[in-house]
Amino acid sequence: MKLVNQDWLIRENGFDRNRIAADGNKFMIGNGYMGCRGTMEEYTRGELAAVTLAGLYDQVDGKWREPVNAPHPLYAVIEFEGQSLSVLDCEPVEHEQALDIRSAVHHRRTVFKADRGAELVVESERFCSAERLNVIAGRLSVTCSADGQLTIRTGIDGEVWDINGPHLEKLEAAERQNSLLVTAVTRELQVPLAVAERISSSMEAEGREAVTMEVRYDQQSGSVFRTISFACRAGKTYTFDRFAAVCTGLDEEEPGAAALRLCREAAGTGYTGLLAEHEACWERKWALADVVIEGDDEAQLALRYSLYQLLIIAPEHSEKLSIPARGLSGQVYKGAVFWDTEMFMLPFFLYTQPETARNLVMYRIHTLDGARRKAAEYGYEGAFYAWESQETGDDACTLFNVNDVFTGRPMRTYFRDKQVHISADAAYGIWEYYKFTGDEGILLQGGAETVWECARFFYSYAYYNPLKQRYEVLDVTGPDEYHERVNNNAFTNAMVKRTLFIALEAMEILHAACPEQYEALVQNSAIKPEHIRDMHDRLYVPEPDSETGLIEQFDRYFTLEDVPLHELKGRVLNKHEYWGGGNGLATTTQILKQADIVLMLHLFKDAYDTVIKKANWAYYEPRTEHGSSLSACIYAMVAADTGSPDWGYPYFMRTATIDLTGESKQYVGDLYIGGTHPAANGGAWMAAVQGFAGIRFDGECATISPSLPEKWQAVQTRLILRGQQIKVRVGRQQVELEADAGNTSEVRVAAYGQSLTLEPGVSAVLRMGQE
Amino acid sequence: MKLVNQDWLIRENGFDRNRIAADGNKFMIGNGYMGCRGTMEEYTRGELAAVTLAGLYDQVDGKWREPVNAPHPLYAVIEFEGQSLSVLDCEPVEHEQALDIRSAVHHRRTVFKADRGAELVVESERFCSAERLNVIAGRLSVTCSADGQLTIRTGIDGEVWDINGPHLEKLEAAERQNSLLVTAVTRELQVPLAVAERISSSMEAEGREAVTMEVRYDQQSGSVFRTISFACRAGKTYTFDRFAAVCTGLDEEEPGAAALRLCREAAGTGYTGLLAEHEACWERKWALADVVIEGDDEAQLALRYSLYQLLIIAPEHSEKLSIPARGLSGQVYKGAVFWDTEMFMLPFFLYTQPETARNLVMYRIHTLDGARRKAAEYGYEGAFYAWESQETGDDACTLFNVNDVFTGRPMRTYFRDKQVHISADAAYGIWEYYKFTGDEGILLQGGAETVWECARFFYSYAYYNPLKQRYEVLDVTGPDEYHERVNNNAFTNAMVKRTLFIALEAMEILHAACPEQYEALVQNSAIKPEHIRDMHDRLYVPEPDSETGLIEQFDRYFTLEDVPLHELKGRVLNKHEYWGGGNGLATTTQILKQADIVLMLHLFKDAYDTVIKKANWAYYEPRTEHGSSLSACIYAMVAADTGSPDWGYPYFMRTATIDLTGESKQYVGDLYIGGTHPAANGGAWMAAVQGFAGIRFDGECATISPSLPEKWQAVQTRLILRGQQIKVRVGRQQVELEADAGNTSEVRVAAYGQSLTLEPGVSAVLRMGQE
Repeated sequence: MKLVNQDWLIRENGFDRNRIAADGNKFMIGNGYMGCRGTMEEYTRGELAAVTLAGLYDQVDGKWREPVNAPHPLYAVIEFEGQSLSVLDCEPVEHEQALDIRSAVHHRRTVFKADRGAELVVESERFCSAERLNVIAGRLSVTCSADGQLTIRTGIDGEVWDINGPHLEKLEAAERQNSLLVTAVTRELQVPLAVAERISSSMEAEGREAVTMEVRYDQQSGSVFRTISFACRAGKTYTFDRFAAVCTGLDEEEPGAAALRLCREAAGTGYTGLLAEHEACWERKWALADVVIEGDDEAQLALRYSLYQLLIIAPEHSEKLSIPARGLSGQVYKGAVFWDTEMFMLPFFLYTQPETARNLVMYRIHTLDGARRKAAEYGYEGAFYAWESQETGDDACTLFNVNDVFTGRPMRTYFRDKQVHISADAAYGIWEYYKFTGDEGILLQGGAETVWECARFFYSYAYYNPLKQRYEVLDVTGPDEYHERVNNNAFTNAMVKRTLFIALEAMEILHAACPEQYEALVQNSAIKPEHIRDMHDRLYVPEPDSETGLIEQFDRYFTLEDVPLHELKGRVLNKHEYWGGGNGLATTTQILKQADIVLMLHLFKDAYDTVIKKANWAYYEPRTEHGSSLSACIYAMVAADTGSPDWGYPYFMRTATIDLTGESKQYVGDLYIGGTHPAANGGAWMAAVQGFAGIRFDGECATISPSLPEKWQAVQTRLILRGQQIKVRVGRQQVELEADAGNTSEVRVAAYGQSLTLEPGVSAVLRMGQE
Repeated sequence: MKLVNQDWLIRENGFDRNRIAADGNKFMIGNGYMGCRGTMEEYTRGELAAVTLAGLYDQVDGKWREPVNAPHPLYAVIEFEGQSLSVLDCEPVEHEQALDIRSAVHHRRTVFKADRGAELVVESERFCSAERLNVIAGRLSVTCSADGQLTIRTGIDGEVWDINGPHLEKLEAAERQNSLLVTAVTRELQVPLAVAERISSSMEAEGREAVTMEVRYDQQSGSVFRTISFACRAGKTYTFDRFAAVCTGLDEEEPGAAALRLCREAAGTGYTGLLAEHEACWERKWALADVVIEGDDEAQLALRYSLYQLLIIAPEHSEKLSIPARGLSGQVYKGAVFWDTEMFMLPFFLYTQPETARNLVMYRIHTLDGARRKAAEYGYEGAFYAWESQETGDDACTLFNVNDVFTGRPMRTYFRDKQVHISADAAYGIWEYYKFTGDEGILLQGGAETVWECARFFYSYAYYNPLKQRYEVLDVTGPDEYHERVNNNAFTNAMVKRTLFIALEAMEILHAACPEQYEALVQNSAIKPEHIRDMHDRLYVPEPDSETGLIEQFDRYFTLEDVPLHELKGRVLNKHEYWGGGNGLATTTQILKQADIVLMLHLFKDAYDTVIKKANWAYYEPRTEHGSSLSACIYAMVAADTGSPDWGYPYFMRTATIDLTGESKQYVGDLYIGGTHPAANGGAWMAAVQGFAGIRFDGECATISPSLPEKWQAVQTRLILRGQQIKVRVGRQQVELEADAGNTSEVRVAAYGQSLTLEPGVSAVLRMGQE
């Protein structure tokens, strides 16, 4: 393999059948339009081969709605003298899989020992073009140590992974214009979809005398394969370049014609040309996104890998897409968008790709009607966002999301109807984007309406306690999902209060800029801004205890059984049993699934002093199972915030390596939940940049409060602050700053109690202990 | 057996080991001070032999607190020629157990075939004296067809049934003053307890030459037995009269001395004398309580048996006792008092024993402080009554009342903390008593304070919905316990509203009569009468749908799965599995445990018209599992109320026969819940008298609206209305009335749209269709 710098390389040696699913996630490539799992060319349905499409969902037979996986266009299996050279059939003597995260190219090299001692080396690489989003390009080569008959079967494999499928019907496989073509429509909404693929080989230049080629169709599965057979010569390398295009009715009027055209154009550019333009795109991505950790190679690779995972799924091209909880790694969690996006991914994009951040936020604005439908379904006003959101914003989450392992029965869970903080998270995301970028346009184009609708939802959801003379938020599930249907979850209440504030602010901006829009919103609502104001001013948010400093996670949390985590684990009867739900082990104890109070301390860090943060960190961390991949990064950040970065470091590492090690929960009940973890990926960035480097931008000034782990000498990164770029190196004793020469205005930065204003092209250093 | 009229006799032939527990309930005797299970003389702990004491509770080793069973004083086992004549050891050739419900005497006759063909007839009878509440008297006789050596072992058996015991310590067994005596103290509160027993036999008159007697003690179990041995002669009957007394520190300063004295006095009166005075008491009880059903012998016996069950456990002698859910039949349900008393038993006592009704109501007033402690524990004001109440009113109900049959783990249930209607039921009971009797004294002696505290509790529990501008009662469990933690349970809200009304009325009465007491209550409360008035006026009570007439049991009940009951039963995996709780089968469906809406329609019958009642009966009945013994009677009553008594008849019969057939649930999870069912017993009376005979007294006028089942020609009973007695015969076409000559004032009665006033000693007939 011709591979890049080891700093950017993820590799794995040897073939292990048990790692097939995990490696599919770990070695995934993608471009925001589609994700292509890190499977071998010869893999098919059983090995979870999938090209998962962003934003295209389908439902069949009343089963869960989920993303559609396209027929896989880069299928290939090689035979030598009639013997299959698939790792599934023939134990390889060498096998290496690698991912070049600098340019998002997947590599594979496998050496097979065939009958009679012949050694065959199969190499491949592939990428989802960052320049041409519909295109996947691949190169496959084979070298044999002996002469013999080589057969290469390539084409489009309709037998792809489906959890609740099959999702395609009217499948047609054909050969058109020198390409293979599979067309189909989705079953629920009849959205057309086409996959085209063509091949060119190094043999073409040499003449094709010895070559036979045959094309076979399987109309039922939507597969079409060509078989190329020829007499290979010892020591010679045969290379096949493959060009595929995937189009759907969401992006093209005639997906079949478009796929054929894109395929032809890609072949015209050629593999090397496609790769070059792809690499150029990735160079630009990394120029903005990269974070350099000086002094810690392990953390460096893990963090870059985390950013890679975010970059391959970022919907740069569409404001109707957001990022699902499992990215584009398959259909797990229904391909749905959760609160993860706003709370764990948005910060990375705000600081490095504000246009993508805008898309993520616009997705919520575009799905406002779905949120309104959900609120109305439950008898509330305004917008109750989907816990599991797909393209319309209607909730894909069911009331029975987990099966009880003891009885096999569906278990009533309250993710859908009680995790109301989702509407606050959506509003929070919009406001964060607005504050960060100053882009008032987003408020006028639906943002103000959206946050207003979220506030109205909460007003209709909340109750007034006449005795205590305060509003309360009852019967909710907070981030700690092991405790469902609690009252006055501190995190939720704080987020609701924030939403009310945001709505009032946004409505004032709307009032000033678009008075008619403002009037229409207020006229059509029984809930007026003064109601929102009243609720804001009198909403109960649990406060730190005056003696212990502890904030109770929800009403009566402290009365629950205070059992040590290891003891609770000792009560487990079935390793897949769900700890929450009706009779879950954790529900009657103080053991939490994930950061809840501590997340609040992070989000509202200015409202709590260090003593309070430390007390709550120390109380809640030992009681946290970290059963969610969203948990560890928050503990890392609050540890950094309280001046204990080395406490936070292991949590950072756990977050940053989650998709490298594959050490995350794979099952809840009998539900498979494997896949990539974009929220943890975003959390790794948050912990490194916002946590340890201590960088914060409030829309006017970037404040830097370094709190680096012991090993780290410095963190370097670029930031885009209201369109102005600066380069930052946060060291142990000083912060080095450099404003881009191309900036159009000055940038304010503060550190160590000093602040300065950077004119375009100017560098500066702020040192610890200076006056 | 010399037995009474068959109309008053419950009998069972043959011995069946599997019926031991059920027969212990069915053949129980008692006198309100104690209940003595229907066990054989030779039964002990394993056969659930128990003398359960009213109001004496004990807790050991953190297990559930439960009533204390006294050492059993009427233990006896006979040996003939060394062979044990216990039904447990020797299959009897004849065996009959019978209960004379007219005088509450237990009978037994067993014939054994001994070795060498001798036939032995053992007969016994026993009763808990209705005249001397501490006394149990028994007569045991044995006749043998052959000469031989007879040994009779009698005495006090300390090996009694205990669920969460043993409850006694410092046990001492002795012989004193010709009596056997066991003394002990309870373990938790060190309440002293004594059981004395003495015996006299027919042989005494004949001289005791051939008799040997020996007394043996077992100090550990608190047992003492005497063994009488003699040569019996063929055909001669030997009779032993036994006199026992049970005393505790709750009723006597020196229970040991008192028990000995009472025992001696009883022996002095002799068995026949004791029986005569006991029978006289029972004649007086029946004279007031009996209900004659003309035309339906089966219903007649079942109803009388139901009334019998109430009469043997009624706390006529103490206003600090109420009636536990399983009466005095053992320790099941912790011997605790539930809402059953007010809602299902109180009516019978109001109409037939107003002094006992007063005791039941006073029990709530005496346990007010316990209810205050419970409210405070949960952060509420006022009085939150115990779901399972014992002598102090502190809640014996745990948060984990049932074990999950699938995992064996304790299951969090919400009986204790969410079934808030209990405070409304307590207030309702007080007000019903006041309205019925006009006894203002009860309000001035704590009744007004109690209902005020209940109202204050609800004010602090409720929330105001600012959008809908109404108070709501959230997060409760209604009578249908399969649906925990629901919002706006119609029954609960209606009961809360009633409680607020009652509190306002009672406080006005208090204000007029005892202004200082009133002022003190109001001064000490942040919640003022005007707050209660506001909540009363603006409390949401779900109303009938304008089209269907249906009242939704709670918010969103109609969105639950509408599965037929038989289909739900088909989903059962374990016959003891609990249908409610965290993951219970019924919780996500519309299947209810028991009448909930329909109970509300009964309690507030004037607020709903017949069309509404019929629509809701028809909707909810097929969805009711009747998993509670409280359910069927309510369906019977509402059927009668809507002019369909024959629909109601099977529900009446199910209610009235529950303790005869033993066909009730015996297990919830792994929890034994067998025992007698006083609420169903009371429900049988309610269905017959209030339902079918249609009798209602509002404090001024008794209204009679007959709705008799087809078979019934008439219902006859006596009523005590504000101290005035009348005899009523409710026929199919007419109502016959007779006021007692001893009455001191007139009685107003209405039927068929006519009303009249009965002077003392006057009879009258109201006929259907008359003007």
